[in-house]
Amino acid sequence: MHDISSLINKHQPVLEEALRSNAERNQLVSWPKSLRINILKDEEARNAGQAAFEAHINSEFGALNIEGATEFFGAEESPYGFSLEVSYPLQDIDAVVHAGRDAMKEWRSLSVAARAAVLMECLERAADKAAEIGFATMHTTGQGLIMAFQASGGDAFDRALEAVAMGYRELSAFVPSNTWTKQVGREEFVTVHKSFHAVPRGVNLVVGCSTFPIWNSTPGMFAGLITGNTVVVKPHPKAILPIAIFVASMRATLADLGLNHNIVQLFVDTAGDPKTMDLAMHPDVKLIDYTGSSAFGDELEKIGHANNKAVFTEKSGVNSAIIESADDLDAILDNMAFSMVLYSGQMCTAPQTIFINGKGVTVGDETVPYGEVVDRLTEKVMNLSRHPKIGAATLGALQNEATEDRVAAAADMDEGRLLLESERVGQPGFPQARTVTPTIIELKADKSDVYGREWFGPIYFVVPTDGFEHSLNLMTDLVKRVGALTTSVYSTDAEQRALAEERIVFEAGAPLAFNFVGKLWVNQSAAFSDFHGAGANPAGTATFSDVSFISNRYNMVGVRDMTPRA
Amino acid sequence: MHDISSLINKHQPVLEEALRSNAERNQLVSWPKSLRINILKDEEARNAGQAAFEAHINSEFGALNIEGATEFFGAEESPYGFSLEVSYPLQDIDAVVHAGRDAMKEWRSLSVAARAAVLMECLERAADKAAEIGFATMHTTGQGLIMAFQASGGDAFDRALEAVAMGYRELSAFVPSNTWTKQVGREEFVTVHKSFHAVPRGVNLVVGCSTFPIWNSTPGMFAGLITGNTVVVKPHPKAILPIAIFVASMRATLADLGLNHNIVQLFVDTAGDPKTMDLAMHPDVKLIDYTGSSAFGDELEKIGHANNKAVFTEKSGVNSAIIESADDLDAILDNMAFSMVLYSGQMCTAPQTIFINGKGVTVGDETVPYGEVVDRLTEKVMNLSRHPKIGAATLGALQNEATEDRVAAAADMDEGRLLLESERVGQPGFPQARTVTPTIIELKADKSDVYGREWFGPIYFVVPTDGFEHSLNLMTDLVKRVGALTTSVYSTDAEQRALAEERIVFEAGAPLAFNFVGKLWVNQSAAFSDFHGAGANPAGTATFSDVSFISNRYNMVGVRDMTPRA
Repeated sequence: MHDISSLINKHQPVLEEALRSNAERNQLVSWPKSLRINILKDEEARNAGQAAFEAHINSEFGALNIEGATEFFGAEESPYGFSLEVSYPLQDIDAVVHAGRDAMKEWRSLSVAARAAVLMECLERAADKAAEIGFATMHTTGQGLIMAFQASGGDAFDRALEAVAMGYRELSAFVPSNTWTKQVGREEFVTVHKSFHAVPRGVNLVVGCSTFPIWNSTPGMFAGLITGNTVVVKPHPKAILPIAIFVASMRATLADLGLNHNIVQLFVDTAGDPKTMDLAMHPDVKLIDYTGSSAFGDELEKIGHANNKAVFTEKSGVNSAIIESADDLDAILDNMAFSMVLYSGQMCTAPQTIFINGKGVTVGDETVPYGEVVDRLTEKVMNLSRHPKIGAATLGALQNEATEDRVAAAADMDEGRLLLESERVGQPGFPQARTVTPTIIELKADKSDVYGREWFGPIYFVVPTDGFEHSLNLMTDLVKRVGALTTSVYSTDAEQRALAEERIVFEAGAPLAFNFVGKLWVNQSAAFSDFHGAGANPAGTATFSDVSFISNRYNMVGVRDMTPRA
Repeated sequence: MHDISSLINKHQPVLEEALRSNAERNQLVSWPKSLRINILKDEEARNAGQAAFEAHINSEFGALNIEGATEFFGAEESPYGFSLEVSYPLQDIDAVVHAGRDAMKEWRSLSVAARAAVLMECLERAADKAAEIGFATMHTTGQGLIMAFQASGGDAFDRALEAVAMGYRELSAFVPSNTWTKQVGREEFVTVHKSFHAVPRGVNLVVGCSTFPIWNSTPGMFAGLITGNTVVVKPHPKAILPIAIFVASMRATLADLGLNHNIVQLFVDTAGDPKTMDLAMHPDVKLIDYTGSSAFGDELEKIGHANNKAVFTEKSGVNSAIIESADDLDAILDNMAFSMVLYSGQMCTAPQTIFINGKGVTVGDETVPYGEVVDRLTEKVMNLSRHPKIGAATLGALQNEATEDRVAAAADMDEGRLLLESERVGQPGFPQARTVTPTIIELKADKSDVYGREWFGPIYFVVPTDGFEHSLNLMTDLVKRVGALTTSVYSTDAEQRALAEERIVFEAGAPLAFNFVGKLWVNQSAAFSDFHGAGANPAGTATFSDVSFISNRYNMVGVRDMTPRA
């Protein structure tokens, strides 16, 4: 094995910074440095990344180094309008899970400091592939290049390191062993040599999604790994390439360090023959991380609980906003419009339903009529999404053609007033890109059967209410019933904000953003600072990365030894 | 409200010591001091405790200060042979759970330091009642007085403080709020005021058992309370008085500090009309701690998981031991015999099934034949349990008459060879005490349907095996199939011990004790040092008190506020 102690020393300063950043809910300075470039301006990195991505097209993906792989399959298509024609080795479930189980003893036998160092080395080396992963992300998810490079790069690597640091903290809660003496008589003592083992639970399955194949997978992967479990990543069949590059890099690093590369594995399935449930049901799979639909997530939670598996889910929900009052109405509407246009509402954190006081929005001493507020919001969304320079890049493309169908269905339904209708817009260089501008529909407050279910994609609802209390009741009910990853309240009234915090955070259990303006959007969730997911509402059980995201992956088991020592 | 900051200062030194003891898996020096007396020698404390206990007999228990209580009921009987005739107020489930929910906002609004100080004050004042609680424990559980005073006193208070300290550590993982700045342009920054709330999950139900009504309840109570939840204790209908005294004391302390006494409540039900499941199913009950049978515990876990409640269980299991080799055979058999006699096998940590190498036990250069080992163990158990001075006090009494029936059934079944038959023995001063000596039965290794299920009480099985590997296989299978709170291996061979650790700890997930001799027994579990329960095998999901015992009781939810500050 590679000299792990030098690796520990190498990564110690950044690990310590990550521990501090986690505790202080701050941010981490640039690490790894190669992720902090501007992909638009750094032509060399961009071109190299693009070339590396293009080299995968029309080929078998062999970098996973899987012995005996004979059957290959792949069906990824770029939302920008072409087929990737990359094929991946198909494997046997038992073989993969057993390989993961067999790799566990070596991995758990390392100290937590050693595991942290190995994982950080994996991240540092994988960062060299960030531009390549960025292009692969763009052409599987439909994200614009900037977002793809950031979300699958620095942001995802930060979330990975965050989980490593949280794991390091929790696994350092107790000494690994001690010699314990107890007085049992006037001059009589007993001495026991005790060990306190953090026993990993088993193979950790990480089920990826089609829109954030890296960002939503690294937290579970690294939380599972730092706690001594081995990991099998099961990507969405339409978004394999980014995580395949990442996992292949990790496996190469592990092998180079003299460790079993099956500590991390990739298991690819196909849309026609999905294997997630079979993997999840395997008796050696004890931990499941999942991002995706509520229907399947609920099912995984159910079978997990029935079979003593810990299940960490991020499912669907309906994020909502309240517009009640503002100092600067344009500033808040600009902010909200950007949140709605960015990646065409395909972020799990994007707002979908906007409650606006039907009697108008208070701005300073004035009341801006509801109708005018809606018009101004609609105009901003239209102008931004059709902006000749940044519109298409901000929208990206629709990952799934079903989303485009949903956009059409929303406009066709006869439930409210269509305020803004989607239109196809061009993507420079990609004439076939599946890119559309947002749809906005006004609905009455009693139409919660429509605005209160998830319409994944660029579909938004504006709901006039009787006032703040009504808006807050609707939002609270919505979060409690269907869950939310974010909520957003615009109010200049401190009492209203306090009431919102009481109800949304403590009663309904959703994160809350007040009065966002400028270049920070509710969609964004900053590693080391913002918890992502709450585990406190129906949108999921996982929180990146709180204590329980770590502590449920192992059990503390003690050994007491009274054998006399030499 | 009382001046909490002075309370924080008062308890800070002991809290810091508890934090250190937890981390170092050490022990805590005497706190509270009143618990560290010798109840047998301290005549004044003993007499006062006995008098206070006897004052409850034949009366309504009013110290809980429950408004409007009209109906009273109680049916406790001392295993030493008399009825307690104490009756307790019966309450409405909705009223109790809503009172708990209503008390939550005040309680969670305190800082974790304040909550820790309040809880430590509660413990310190309740400690004045330790002798009274000791007698109440003796005369509901059947424990001998020394055990009753220790188990419901210092040991239970230690476990409570351990949970408080663990909660303090985990809730201190993140700053409660900060001001976060991000560079978003060359000279452009955004500033966000962030709060990170640990949102308690709801009302924490703590379901007690009949044998350790305080010790098994304080961890869940104090873990629930330190994390900002309010607690409803539902004791076993046959062991109410000890925890009623404890909860009444806590409520008086809370009220005296100007806090809502419904932060802790007691809900009493009756054997004829059990209410645990109704309480557990109440939508505001979000956390359940349970000690008791596997059948009911499994059911609670199931309904809990289906309804988004966290469930912490300690259920039944079969603890086993392997006797393979020894330096001093008498020393290990003396130790094991004491473990078997102590409180008549009614500790969840007592060994039940003993695997012995059928070819004999290696002692130095000799091999002691299997039959002789069994004879010597049987003789030690017989001599200790009938010892005129310490026998009856060590045995205590059988809590439940069903246990005495089980002892008889074990002797009557035609499955193996009866090595030692139970006999009634007298308890000085209590001619009606339900006290019997242990039953020991030899069974073949293939009789795991008998020795592999729990026989709660003083019923033990000796199983000759083909050798160490066979013993270890049987033990591993047993732990994996039915669970265990403790396992015990006697072997002088380091390789055998390493193999046992690999299989029992890492494969089967049970705590392991090697070569226990002298005045420390596998039954004992020391707060701050030994984790109790593993959560890694079928005997339960709870571990006193690891990180997940704390972290699953709250969710981290963030508020991001961009409202300009004055």
